[in-house]
Amino acid sequence: MQGKMQALMKSRPGPGAELVTVDIPRIGPREVLIKVTAASICGTDVHIYTWNPWAQSRIKPPLVFGHEFAGEVVEVGDQVESVKVGDYVSAEGHFVCGTCLQCRTGQMHVCQHVAILGVDTAGCFAEYVAVPEFNVWKNDPSTPPELCSVQDPMGNAVHTVFAGGDVLAKTVAVIGCGPIGIFAVAVAKAAAAAKVFAVEVNEYRLELAGKLGADRVINPSKEDPVAVVKELTDGNGVDVMLEMSGNPRAIDQGFKMLRYGGRAALLGLPDKPIEFDLSNNVVFKGAEVYGVTGRRMWDTWYKMRGLFQSGKLNIEPVITHRLPMSEFKQGFDLMISGNCGKVVLYPGK
Amino acid sequence: MQGKMQALMKSRPGPGAELVTVDIPRIGPREVLIKVTAASICGTDVHIYTWNPWAQSRIKPPLVFGHEFAGEVVEVGDQVESVKVGDYVSAEGHFVCGTCLQCRTGQMHVCQHVAILGVDTAGCFAEYVAVPEFNVWKNDPSTPPELCSVQDPMGNAVHTVFAGGDVLAKTVAVIGCGPIGIFAVAVAKAAAAAKVFAVEVNEYRLELAGKLGADRVINPSKEDPVAVVKELTDGNGVDVMLEMSGNPRAIDQGFKMLRYGGRAALLGLPDKPIEFDLSNNVVFKGAEVYGVTGRRMWDTWYKMRGLFQSGKLNIEPVITHRLPMSEFKQGFDLMISGNCGKVVLYPGK
Amino acid sequence: MQGKMQALMKSRPGPGAELVTVDIPRIGPREVLIKVTAASICGTDVHIYTWNPWAQSRIKPPLVFGHEFAGEVVEVGDQVESVKVGDYVSAEGHFVCGTCLQCRTGQMHVCQHVAILGVDTAGCFAEYVAVPEFNVWKNDPSTPPELCSVQDPMGNAVHTVFAGGDVLAKTVAVIGCGPIGIFAVAVAKAAAAAKVFAVEVNEYRLELAGKLGADRVINPSKEDPVAVVKELTDGNGVDVMLEMSGNPRAIDQGFKMLRYGGRAALLGLPDKPIEFDLSNNVVFKGAEVYGVTGRRMWDTWYKMRGLFQSGKLNIEPVITHRLPMSEFKQGFDLMISGNCGKVVLYPGK
Amino acid sequence: MQGKMQALMKSRPGPGAELVTVDIPRIGPREVLIKVTAASICGTDVHIYTWNPWAQSRIKPPLVFGHEFAGEVVEVGDQVESVKVGDYVSAEGHFVCGTCLQCRTGQMHVCQHVAILGVDTAGCFAEYVAVPEFNVWKNDPSTPPELCSVQDPMGNAVHTVFAGGDVLAKTVAVIGCGPIGIFAVAVAKAAAAAKVFAVEVNEYRLELAGKLGADRVINPSKEDPVAVVKELTDGNGVDVMLEMSGNPRAIDQGFKMLRYGGRAALLGLPDKPIEFDLSNNVVFKGAEVYGVTGRRMWDTWYKMRGLFQSGKLNIEPVITHRLPMSEFKQGFDLMISGNCGKVVLYPGK
Repeated sequence: MQGKMQALMKSRPGPGAELVTVDIPRIGPREVLIKVTAASICGTDVHIYTWNPWAQSRIKPPLVFGHEFAGEVVEVGDQVESVKVGDYVSAEGHFVCGTCLQCRTGQMHVCQHVAILGVDTAGCFAEYVAVPEFNVWKNDPSTPPELCSVQDPMGNAVHTVFAGGDVLAKTVAVIGCGPIGIFAVAVAKAAAAAKVFAVEVNEYRLELAGKLGADRVINPSKEDPVAVVKELTDGNGVDVMLEMSGNPRAIDQGFKMLRYGGRAALLGLPDKPIEFDLSNNVVFKGAEVYGVTGRRMWDTWYKMRGLFQSGKLNIEPVITHRLPMSEFKQGFDLMISGNCGKVVLYPGK
Repeated sequence: MQGKMQALMKSRPGPGAELVTVDIPRIGPREVLIKVTAASICGTDVHIYTWNPWAQSRIKPPLVFGHEFAGEVVEVGDQVESVKVGDYVSAEGHFVCGTCLQCRTGQMHVCQHVAILGVDTAGCFAEYVAVPEFNVWKNDPSTPPELCSVQDPMGNAVHTVFAGGDVLAKTVAVIGCGPIGIFAVAVAKAAAAAKVFAVEVNEYRLELAGKLGADRVINPSKEDPVAVVKELTDGNGVDVMLEMSGNPRAIDQGFKMLRYGGRAALLGLPDKPIEFDLSNNVVFKGAEVYGVTGRRMWDTWYKMRGLFQSGKLNIEPVITHRLPMSEFKQGFDLMISGNCGKVVLYPGK
Repeated sequence: MQGKMQALMKSRPGPGAELVTVDIPRIGPREVLIKVTAASICGTDVHIYTWNPWAQSRIKPPLVFGHEFAGEVVEVGDQVESVKVGDYVSAEGHFVCGTCLQCRTGQMHVCQHVAILGVDTAGCFAEYVAVPEFNVWKNDPSTPPELCSVQDPMGNAVHTVFAGGDVLAKTVAVIGCGPIGIFAVAVAKAAAAAKVFAVEVNEYRLELAGKLGADRVINPSKEDPVAVVKELTDGNGVDVMLEMSGNPRAIDQGFKMLRYGGRAALLGLPDKPIEFDLSNNVVFKGAEVYGVTGRRMWDTWYKMRGLFQSGKLNIEPVITHRLPMSEFKQGFDLMISGNCGKVVLYPGK
Repeated sequence: MQGKMQALMKSRPGPGAELVTVDIPRIGPREVLIKVTAASICGTDVHIYTWNPWAQSRIKPPLVFGHEFAGEVVEVGDQVESVKVGDYVSAEGHFVCGTCLQCRTGQMHVCQHVAILGVDTAGCFAEYVAVPEFNVWKNDPSTPPELCSVQDPMGNAVHTVFAGGDVLAKTVAVIGCGPIGIFAVAVAKAAAAAKVFAVEVNEYRLELAGKLGADRVINPSKEDPVAVVKELTDGNGVDVMLEMSGNPRAIDQGFKMLRYGGRAALLGLPDKPIEFDLSNNVVFKGAEVYGVTGRRMWDTWYKMRGLFQSGKLNIEPVITHRLPMSEFKQGFDLMISGNCGKVVLYPGK
């Protein structure tokens, strides 16, 4: 498909981004072109926008960024078999090699040769985006584009919540309630956790965590989260701890509130090595710890579809702001402030 | 504690039972005496009552039967440490040896030397029952005696539903909706199954399955359950099949509606060897099959407690009839008719 | 690559096969052409050769059959990236769709749209064979072609032995010692099973099972396998039972010798529904049962490579006969007699 | 049994220990008295002997210490049922409560109320030791006392090697080759690991690791262990990393040589919080990490029995020194020097 489109471009090193007109991407024989209906802003996008140290080391402008979206297929390559024009889709943003040890043994999410949509290739903050057929996920037509767009971060939450097992009838602590943490609260509740504790300093997000079902919200700047959790779990501590903050102090508190023989899943990323009490937090405790990155391909996506079908999960309240893409500055400002859930942009508007 | 009590006794070989006055059980140093508040009727009790072939080969009258109950501890043996007078409890009815291979490696439910409450020892259809300290389970005071009493069969359902993994976001078929099947429907729904199909010929029980949350009820005498399930699962078949009927034809249908690579858990007991298509139902299909007996000690009990705490599970409607124990005949007649869920008896009334 | 080659052809319905000269296969853009160095005869090939009912219903002559081989890549399609001319390879014979539920969730071995090499497409009893890039497995150059050829059936054995868990320190019974059963004996011993029992009526194969490491061989026509196994396992029965015979009586014996809470993996295929004691063999026993077909893609292949590297597994004695492909009749006669392990053919000789 | 016995006593705070004559322990109704045939020295015993900070905070002299042993039952309490006089036994040294959440759900090794033999109660560096019936393990009569004595530390190794899964066909790095590390090397090899790498600075112990089967020994003071391991694993890194050193630098190296999606089991105990690169070592890597303490009750013990039966494991060379208990000083000096494997003492000699 030929023509021009509007796209949000990181044009050069430094803070900010700009709305520009560029060529619609050309697709290869095994790729698919998608008209983007809704695209949501990820913390990674904020890093690119503010041009933090990670972005400085990784991103090569000019780049159209963004990787969370839903849309409609408008063109397919010659050899594409499983996707057709008109399909309502989202995409897994990790483009994997398919032949490394990890790809061949059920761990594509840690492929050794991964490239990431909107980081290594042109992203979805645009009217059109091209992705490999392999990465396309067909959405249920009854689920609106905003909810399908956020399957990428919700997938991070799902991957984290179920890393190492289920949470059914278990007590769960979610440490850090950015959007992924809030999704984790909702998912753990839908999955019949006995109790879900949400720990977060930002009151806006803590309130959102409560709205999504947390049984007890805890602001660690106001009360001791370890003491509260221990008291509400008969002194045992929680069965499962989900670390979504990357904050060294919160990580330590998370492990302190984990019960002996419990399970921790870590998604939050400290930006440098931290002081960590490995002996007491992990070894003596007989803890299981799971590092989590990306989403399981494709178990996580099937879990999300099934959760939507179950009728037990309502993530609608997590989407707090909806903006035309032309008002992207407001969207990024909201994300930087922390006083929001997910912010969805509508390209071409 | 000395004295007399009323108890429901299988006095002699043959159908029926009678209400008699007997001595209150004496307890050993590691046993506990419990005043029974509520006791529910199991299918096994019906077998004893009607004196079916299994009962004839296993039961040695005179025997006070019954094994599902809740009550209050009124006396503890000298060496009892973890239970005290006044505790509100139920009991695991499998008395295990603790030293066989199975007991020492997490499979107490298939202990090689098990004895069963109300089958091998005096049961709970009585004002008082004695059980080993080891078998006592402390109930949450906020859960009423009727619900605590049915933890035994609900435990069978929980053990079956989660044999081999979770059901989260999965499609599930429950074949046979006696009380345990109905519990399985409720538990699978609480556990966020994508869809739950309930298959049962008795309309009363099928309706109950729907009331407990089945997404689609199927009467196999009226429509083809395999065709219905295949159609509603994109032609795949269900991820998980729970066999609760013991009926050869239903078992075959259950496997036919199971997807390739799916999981089956079998609780229903055919009363003799059946004709079974092992090649197509299991081998070619790459299926996993779990035989289920009893409840996991004590994972199943913790799962039940956590499910109650989650607020996602309401089994109240399964208890359809409540009777003084003196009206036990009506209770057994109801169970024999199949037009009931669980029937609860109140001893001493 | 153009030209003619010699191939073993099922030319028409009915018993037998013939050596013919045909065109070398043309490859597509994502396929690979392999010069076959060694090819081994599978039981499936014997079914095709003898034209049994399964073959009559499934095979469409004319067909070059055979699916177990090792060879050297001589040509690659335009879009092939991970394989190059000169690579020493074997191939997974299940050609899968890659997009069905099973393929996307780690169960490619039960892909809903599978095609099989040498059954649905031209096979490897030929000087050259074409396979999709995706199906190519690179062999270690230090492993000889005969051993690489038999990775297909050895993969069935590996898949069966480890279906549902490991066998380390466990007692294992292998029921039926055709080539796959013999591989299973060798693999279970290499994997540090506590004891391996081999059950088989054919004395040639029973002796071979002993040579490959079985701790105790049992001919069920001479002694009661259930009694022998029970006695040698302190009365418990075995932890793991691997069914490789498909014989109804042997299947029943296998389950009877399985301990409470044990695990069974079923590869053998009864040719029609059997009478089966589901209640006692599976349900009361709390058994886990795994249907096994094909090999896990690609876990099984990695397991085989690692087992070869470990130095613990020597399968060389399983290969009892090596013949030029021109003497294929002798090879098939040997397989039909049962007095052999694996028979390897050398195409072009 | 009344009388006096010789025992190795920590008589008072401070370094050293002394051989004294004390009363033979009295047993309770559910305890067993064992005549100690062989007792081995653990690193924990060395801590008690040298009176390190941990010992100062935990040990209350006077105390007979020691917890690794084999012996013969000479007396049993009134209520003991499963053990009899004359049994040849060892013991699990963790005395657990049996009723906490962990004890009731398969995690007795992290019981919340554990007491430890020879730390909290009178130990086995004595002619007689008393233990609860529950803790007794019956040895195979064909296994000599020295090998049965070291089942305690070998159990730590077995628990670590198999924490989170098997090692079959996997590459394994053992970081730190004290006696438990050396056992881990031997166990991983017996379990058919593809390759085992042993990393240790002490040349005596590194040589021992090689003798027990390590495919490649690495002295990190002489070569870069990360580079060596990466090179020998096709650049992937190892599938499984077993941390047995507690050294911060070695821990970091261990994680650096772990492949993406790999598994780490941590037994070594840093004596204070360490600087740790959680983001790169665990999160991005999608690693699984298991904290390991004690032994699984009783899976680990059954695994050891089965490994001995398999004929694949020969730990005899790990026992490098055998001394009468009267020469305990020499034994402790050896342990302090590090130039030994296991040191076995013979009480009463």
